[in-house]
Amino acid sequence: MSARIIATYHVTADAASIEARARGIAVEQSVEMPVEGIDDPVVLNGIVGRVDEIREITPGRYRVRIGLATETVGGDAGQLFNMLFGNTSIQEGVDLADADLPDAILAAHPGPNIGTPGLRARTGAHGRALTCGALKPQGLPPEGLASLAGRMAAGGIDLIKDDHGLADQPYSPFTHRVDRIAEALDQVAARSGKRTLYIPSLSGNLDAMRGQIRHAISRGVDAFLIAPIVAGIPTFATLVREFPACAFMTHPTLSGIARIAPPLFYGKLFRLLGADAVVYPNHGGRFGYSTATCLELAENCRADWAGKLPCLPTPAGGMTTARIPEMLDFYGADTILLIGGALLATRERLTREVAAFAAAVAAHRYS
Amino acid sequence: MSARIIATYHVTADAASIEARARGIAVEQSVEMPVEGIDDPVVLNGIVGRVDEIREITPGRYRVRIGLATETVGGDAGQLFNMLFGNTSIQEGVDLADADLPDAILAAHPGPNIGTPGLRARTGAHGRALTCGALKPQGLPPEGLASLAGRMAAGGIDLIKDDHGLADQPYSPFTHRVDRIAEALDQVAARSGKRTLYIPSLSGNLDAMRGQIRHAISRGVDAFLIAPIVAGIPTFATLVREFPACAFMTHPTLSGIARIAPPLFYGKLFRLLGADAVVYPNHGGRFGYSTATCLELAENCRADWAGKLPCLPTPAGGMTTARIPEMLDFYGADTILLIGGALLATRERLTREVAAFAAAVAAHRYS
Repeated sequence: MSARIIATYHVTADAASIEARARGIAVEQSVEMPVEGIDDPVVLNGIVGRVDEIREITPGRYRVRIGLATETVGGDAGQLFNMLFGNTSIQEGVDLADADLPDAILAAHPGPNIGTPGLRARTGAHGRALTCGALKPQGLPPEGLASLAGRMAAGGIDLIKDDHGLADQPYSPFTHRVDRIAEALDQVAARSGKRTLYIPSLSGNLDAMRGQIRHAISRGVDAFLIAPIVAGIPTFATLVREFPACAFMTHPTLSGIARIAPPLFYGKLFRLLGADAVVYPNHGGRFGYSTATCLELAENCRADWAGKLPCLPTPAGGMTTARIPEMLDFYGADTILLIGGALLATRERLTREVAAFAAAVAAHRYS
Repeated sequence: MSARIIATYHVTADAASIEARARGIAVEQSVEMPVEGIDDPVVLNGIVGRVDEIREITPGRYRVRIGLATETVGGDAGQLFNMLFGNTSIQEGVDLADADLPDAILAAHPGPNIGTPGLRARTGAHGRALTCGALKPQGLPPEGLASLAGRMAAGGIDLIKDDHGLADQPYSPFTHRVDRIAEALDQVAARSGKRTLYIPSLSGNLDAMRGQIRHAISRGVDAFLIAPIVAGIPTFATLVREFPACAFMTHPTLSGIARIAPPLFYGKLFRLLGADAVVYPNHGGRFGYSTATCLELAENCRADWAGKLPCLPTPAGGMTTARIPEMLDFYGADTILLIGGALLATRERLTREVAAFAAAVAAHRYS
């Protein structure tokens, strides 16, 4: 038998029940039936989940490490999530805290296509954080979004992403939107020499997304925003492999509230499946992640890991220009600073505000 | 502007902050930027989410109804979930309780392909609940699973589903598994005249699932288990449309803990996208749903609704034969009773236990 996946859960229980609870998770995430009903020794020894450790971490809260058979997952991206947390995600009082993945699983997934070095090369941003704006509100026609994109590019921003709510709506169809925005960015690049990287949002099923990517590539656009939980994890993993020259930025929408620890979810699993940049809710914004969670997530994005390229943490969610120095001190240079609504809300001062944003990021002394 | 989607959230807040919180959700689920930064009147009037009602339901807990623009969703299944709960799913203290969908959204999705009448016709089960067993543990080779299937079929069970952990693993590849199990069920049918409906589990990406379905159809198997949150919501919706003669049973794995109220999630949204049967955790089993939640979910599956076929609630998760009368009294005839591990744990008595299960369900007096 090959090495096991070691999944770490945090479980609320009392001392009298934690052993049974741990065995219950080990069964739920493997054979999902009473072990006494199994007589095949290969299944009993090789497939049934194994409780490796139970340790109380705070009163009434336990760390439980469970060895899951690598064979139950294979190379399937969806099955990796299914076996790590599937049915257990519907149970109370248990979170998936971490996972140590054996070589066979790591080798089955590509990691980022271009990662941090690729995004730096494509934007010419070296030795500093990357700057990113967002195109919204949805409801604007492509021409309105293209005008915003052009004005942000004129301020020298590195990246512009679609709002994750922009799909293929009649008021802003994907192809028309990409054409207008690519045009606007080309025009700025012709004047300034700096080409802002545009990251349109993919939507629909796998075939629709393939079509969107092909159209975008034909317009020189080769980076994409994808929400793996909306699109489907296997769809995300498939696109990364089919378009190895493209970059993918993941969005956390619909992924629920931290039942899978964000450092694992975004920093490890999304990176493993191919995220070049991972958007997540920064501490102190509209969402509830702690500073420790954010730091661990960012470290997971950047760590040396199984030969996979590093990817860029992209803290977001109500960020403002006032927070630039603090965020850069906290996150350092290998980060994308994404400021969405707060820049757009400056209206006619948009280009100047973006220029100030870019200047602050460039002038920051990274420790 | 067309009629809006009315999304109902349950929000934890105090009286002083609930109005701001409600406006925050309305913005988060629509334009996701400061409204004061928007000057386009079409966006302000037609796209920005609208707070329709705030009502305290218990001290410190509010019902908030928000009108979301139908245009932001269109006919895209993934976008429906994204706009109903996307970013809000990452925030603390807020659940998606319900959604009233306007005609344009309802008309964009097909509902079940064959629904309750189709599943009754294909199994010959009329005027009573349907019986369902599960194939596990994973790790067994196809021949072992086929032997279990044959023995359950010999007991007269209506449906046999794969464990949701069965994917396309080397120890039990999909095509080989379907071939062996279809063979075993054919043999029983040749003796008994009753053909048990087999529901294999789909895995991988959209293309892989298409291939699995085509192979199964070639073997006379035309009902499938799919986990929409693992597979991807658009993948599920696509398969329902592409294979209109097939039935789909949904599995809730990885869908998290009730942040989207289960009666809405499974009883409405999965049905709307095409579930003919929806598996969910029954009250009193290994999971935490209340009896009220289970009853409302089942009622949503069966309600007259926009001309969509009704689908069959499939309560599961640690069910035993001892609970049959109680569950039938609770759920009535339009239900699938799924007993998985508890049947398999009877080992050499499996066929007799299944026969007793089938007899109890047939003999029950449905009120």
